[in-house]
Amino acid sequence: MSPSQRKAEYDSCLAQYKNFQSQKLTINMSRGKPHAEQLAFSHEMLTAFSRGFTAEGGFLAEDGTDCRNYGGLYGIPEMKRLFAEILDVDPSSVTVGGNSSLNMMFDCVAAFRERIWDKKIKFICPVPGYDRHFAMCEYFDIEMIPVEMTEAGPDMDAVERLAADPSVAGMWCVPVFSNPQGYTYSDETVGRLAAMPAANPHFRLFWDNAYAVHHFRGERPRLLNIFAECARPENNRADRPLAFTSFSKISFAGSAVAAVAASPRNLSILRNRLKFQTVGPDKINQLTHARYFKNLSGVLAHMEKLADILRPKFETAEDIFTRRLGGTGIADWYTPDGGYFISFNTLDHCAKRTVALCAEAGVETTGAGATYPYGNDPRDRNIRIAPSYLTAGELRAALEVFCCAVRLAALELLNGEAYHA
Amino acid sequence: MSPSQRKAEYDSCLAQYKNFQSQKLTINMSRGKPHAEQLAFSHEMLTAFSRGFTAEGGFLAEDGTDCRNYGGLYGIPEMKRLFAEILDVDPSSVTVGGNSSLNMMFDCVAAFRERIWDKKIKFICPVPGYDRHFAMCEYFDIEMIPVEMTEAGPDMDAVERLAADPSVAGMWCVPVFSNPQGYTYSDETVGRLAAMPAANPHFRLFWDNAYAVHHFRGERPRLLNIFAECARPENNRADRPLAFTSFSKISFAGSAVAAVAASPRNLSILRNRLKFQTVGPDKINQLTHARYFKNLSGVLAHMEKLADILRPKFETAEDIFTRRLGGTGIADWYTPDGGYFISFNTLDHCAKRTVALCAEAGVETTGAGATYPYGNDPRDRNIRIAPSYLTAGELRAALEVFCCAVRLAALELLNGEAYHA
Repeated sequence: MSPSQRKAEYDSCLAQYKNFQSQKLTINMSRGKPHAEQLAFSHEMLTAFSRGFTAEGGFLAEDGTDCRNYGGLYGIPEMKRLFAEILDVDPSSVTVGGNSSLNMMFDCVAAFRERIWDKKIKFICPVPGYDRHFAMCEYFDIEMIPVEMTEAGPDMDAVERLAADPSVAGMWCVPVFSNPQGYTYSDETVGRLAAMPAANPHFRLFWDNAYAVHHFRGERPRLLNIFAECARPENNRADRPLAFTSFSKISFAGSAVAAVAASPRNLSILRNRLKFQTVGPDKINQLTHARYFKNLSGVLAHMEKLADILRPKFETAEDIFTRRLGGTGIADWYTPDGGYFISFNTLDHCAKRTVALCAEAGVETTGAGATYPYGNDPRDRNIRIAPSYLTAGELRAALEVFCCAVRLAALELLNGEAYHA
Repeated sequence: MSPSQRKAEYDSCLAQYKNFQSQKLTINMSRGKPHAEQLAFSHEMLTAFSRGFTAEGGFLAEDGTDCRNYGGLYGIPEMKRLFAEILDVDPSSVTVGGNSSLNMMFDCVAAFRERIWDKKIKFICPVPGYDRHFAMCEYFDIEMIPVEMTEAGPDMDAVERLAADPSVAGMWCVPVFSNPQGYTYSDETVGRLAAMPAANPHFRLFWDNAYAVHHFRGERPRLLNIFAECARPENNRADRPLAFTSFSKISFAGSAVAAVAASPRNLSILRNRLKFQTVGPDKINQLTHARYFKNLSGVLAHMEKLADILRPKFETAEDIFTRRLGGTGIADWYTPDGGYFISFNTLDHCAKRTVALCAEAGVETTGAGATYPYGNDPRDRNIRIAPSYLTAGELRAALEVFCCAVRLAALELLNGEAYHA
């Protein structure tokens, strides 16, 4: 485009933007929350106790634990088994917790910090990544070192170099449908994470498998088993991985059940804290989940219903992005086959401005920089798109505003306009 | 008694004990767990969602929060209000958590340790006291200083002296129906706890009001409001108390809802940790509790039903203790009007032996020493009796064995018999 063409394009884009502003929208696209339509698929769980759980053994878990009472600190057997199936591990390696896998990660980081790690440590943080992982590191004063993500997982050459630093004690991984890209780690990536030497003897992989069964298109992605890889005789690193997952985006986002799978040594470190920390998790909720979902097949059948709600939303995003921004060279994005997010890149130096323009037109997105440690996206270009919580109509409206904002921010930059923000 | 009378008494007691042993009992009287009969009074809660919660506003809390989804990190308004009524505070001072008040105490201790307190600190621990409080201090490497309990609460002269030590940063209090005695702090005790100077500027009272509504005889005990006392202009110590309570011994022991009440500064310290720690508590369970119990009157009406289950058990204990041990001078006990425990004292140096004798006859009690920091009862005489979990028949059988063991241990000591254990 010539400068005058760009000026014309800018004027037209600005007119469109002002039109959006006049609509006084208030749409929040910032968090990966399930829509009420998805949640409704689990209502039956809540009425389960009036529909005959008593006939199925009342409140007793398989091992005779009365789920209404104290006890069962590490989870009931049927829930351990269900998580073991999802995570592809032995039930004996599972500890079932409360409603939040994030809380279990927090507890594990706290336990390692209190009992194992040195005071000054660093974590490897694949970027763009999950803001709550990064926030947890900030809370615990753990220095974060970003490593670029690829479609096959984190840049393993960089990871291997960093692991040679003895102060590097951990690494965040979302191995399936990574947050926010939706990438799944390749066999080579998983193999190298298991095989690489780490200078810190207490180096741990925080394997946040939040989207283990969350494919909404095609087959469930195959993930190489990190536990099996680490346990290979030539690796002999059974203590390296701690895997986390939950039913938060399966049943009820705030009222689900979470678990961690880990080696006997890691479980013992966690459990030696849990037994001082709590009287135990909510076992009625565990029993309800275990009896309702029964096994992995039950979970996968349920996820198909949720996929039918989610898939069209991602298709809508793909469609609008392609129509509004395809071929312009001012944006790129990756639309995954599962998970909850789309990772979107503007031109360098345009993400903050885009987010601000969206906000001024009533559309709240995840903050620019949120996908980077310390909120610092060095190229200021990545924005996490979370389509799940919106209705089809809201999503269309929000994404039209978003695409207009992306164009406007890019044109401001290219035209040398002063930023308004 | 003459030595020969004591020998005859010992022989008769031993014969009785051997008879108990031959019955091969296996009764666990160690923990304060509610009996299934009590739990059954709350079954209706679990079927609530099939009986018309939808008509009462569906899954929306009063402030519009969808309880099925993420969000509402500090609790829904109706549950804050209910806890505020129980704790006699303003709802704005309440943070509602998950299922375990112990976990909230742990989180508060952790937060203060991470953000406020020095590394080497001490806690004042009224004794006999609650083993899980003491275990938490051990976990966090907080030195414990025991202070004797009286019927009016902890020995305040000793407490005031200790508070003059700048390394004393906290104190455990179970102000109503103390664990294990069942004493309730007098107005004078509460007033002095609020008024006393503390050398450590971050001195905190951990006010574990676990038995706030757990009277099973007579009126609900009046407790002076620790927040109001601390806030008096002449005291000006609003940050001193953190009060905890839960529905664990109201609804379901493992699946209830817990809360903390505290000053804005304390809440902010806790919340600034919670927001990194978790995606939020189980709000469906909060909504269920709030709608089922409605208000303090609803809770008190429910507690009357539970009282009818608990009262006869405490009466049974009182009756058997009086008949078997009354007037012997080898034991004393206090049978409270609420709470979950009886604090029982043997002769000095006889508690461990009594517990061992019970165990050898198939009756498990709370361990001797458990009611003291580091498990160290210097006089080896206190045993916590927990009658709630047993049926009437089991309780009678267990207490007969217990009384026999108390006599046998005392006679061994008085006769100079070698301990068997």
